[in-house]
Amino acid sequence: MNPPDPALLAINTATLGEKRNLRREIDALRRHNIRGIAPWRDEVAETGAKDAARMIRDNGLVVTGFVRAGFFPAADRNGRRAAIDDNRRAIDDAATLGARCLVVVAGGLPAESKDLPGAREMVRDGVGEILDHARSSGVPLAIEPLHPMYCADRACVNTMKQALDLCDELAGRDGAGIGVAVDVYHLWWDPELESQIVRAGEKRLLAFHICDWLVPTTDLLLDRGMMGDGVIDIPLIRSWMEAAGYRGMHEAEIFSKNNWWKREPDEVLGMCRARHQTVC
Amino acid sequence: MNPPDPALLAINTATLGEKRNLRREIDALRRHNIRGIAPWRDEVAETGAKDAARMIRDNGLVVTGFVRAGFFPAADRNGRRAAIDDNRRAIDDAATLGARCLVVVAGGLPAESKDLPGAREMVRDGVGEILDHARSSGVPLAIEPLHPMYCADRACVNTMKQALDLCDELAGRDGAGIGVAVDVYHLWWDPELESQIVRAGEKRLLAFHICDWLVPTTDLLLDRGMMGDGVIDIPLIRSWMEAAGYRGMHEAEIFSKNNWWKREPDEVLGMCRARHQTVC
Repeated sequence: MNPPDPALLAINTATLGEKRNLRREIDALRRHNIRGIAPWRDEVAETGAKDAARMIRDNGLVVTGFVRAGFFPAADRNGRRAAIDDNRRAIDDAATLGARCLVVVAGGLPAESKDLPGAREMVRDGVGEILDHARSSGVPLAIEPLHPMYCADRACVNTMKQALDLCDELAGRDGAGIGVAVDVYHLWWDPELESQIVRAGEKRLLAFHICDWLVPTTDLLLDRGMMGDGVIDIPLIRSWMEAAGYRGMHEAEIFSKNNWWKREPDEVLGMCRARHQTVC
Repeated sequence: MNPPDPALLAINTATLGEKRNLRREIDALRRHNIRGIAPWRDEVAETGAKDAARMIRDNGLVVTGFVRAGFFPAADRNGRRAAIDDNRRAIDDAATLGARCLVVVAGGLPAESKDLPGAREMVRDGVGEILDHARSSGVPLAIEPLHPMYCADRACVNTMKQALDLCDELAGRDGAGIGVAVDVYHLWWDPELESQIVRAGEKRLLAFHICDWLVPTTDLLLDRGMMGDGVIDIPLIRSWMEAAGYRGMHEAEIFSKNNWWKREPDEVLGMCRARHQTVC
């Protein structure tokens, strides 16, 4: 594999730590000539979506994804309704930001529940209920299958096949406005990853997230590795994405409480920039 | 679901802590009238397989599985050869013990490797190489798909579908002497679990392991829960196993460094006995 086009590097702002501030992040990205950003809802809410959109536009940044909506399962009807309403607001803000997609994290089991098939039905119904609004707003929904270790508490959509089945069920085989976010951290282990990326095709491949799986991994959530520090063959997965027609950016998303989050943003971004060229 | 037959409870000795001693474990099982045991290789090696077999037989215990063989991938030919030899010895001891199956944990990536398809080929070749010896020894090989979070360092076979594909490839669609160990901890999240249990059928369903997935889970390896303390719908999965023809035992296997391993074996076994009747 040739190194990727350096202009394709984007940064999910969670990579820069837990205390997010959009102004500061945009300045940092500019210093490193990074052209893509995936901001989180809390920091966009802080400035308001319109001001956030202006800042982002003024700096010529692409919004690779707006993070994040979803979390549909809830113990009662009111909870499920509140989730739908929240997803609609996320769609509106994603539209204001001109985001390439809205990242949809399904949600796990409702409190006290062991009914996994039921939770998955709630996800299907929830996504189905917001799809029209997303389409009319021009915001593609990117269902992000999360690693099976998050099935209980974060997302009960855990493989590409499952996410694509959901897309097909809700939108028809070629229906637009819905697809998947492919994150190497969540999916690298799946024996069907290549075939499901082929199946997804250009239309359904809405985002490509990169980081690495560390050995050992010491925390289920906050111990992701910098690209190159783990065991994932990122160029191989990128080659599958490109063969399937994906031409979007490569969004680094690294939750790393005890390592990268303790470093200065300039060091983190410099390393992302370097590793994007050498190991992605 | 009705409660399971209490006589079907078995104990994987790892449930009783890190310091295994077969004599002590057998005495403890007898106090709780538990009729099945899955011993580990280290403790069987300590007494020798023949003496272990005699102790087990004298106490009327069924060996639900011998734990464990596998770990085929290695960086070089010598390493792979050593793994094969070790697997052959495990088969011999499993035969001496009269084990219902030998638990095969595939193994992860070789050191310094990111070649996951290559590791999976090594697993296929390795299992293929020991299958004849296992058959002629009367020891069924139970491939245990491990949770995807162990893909890098323990097992690159991570779903029922993948394990069953491997069985079919090596033994033919109905070939005997090889099957799977179904552990709810590793597989509960899989949207295809039910359909793959159906596909497996009685012949390929060689073991059923129970414990629970805790929320939150604080350690990737050693924070398994007692049945009932987590989110897994064990009766549902048991119902799938029984519908597919499984009539074997229910082996509790709980790695729990900070909870159950700190308690007395009698407390742990009493709780396994109780929970087996109430939540399994």
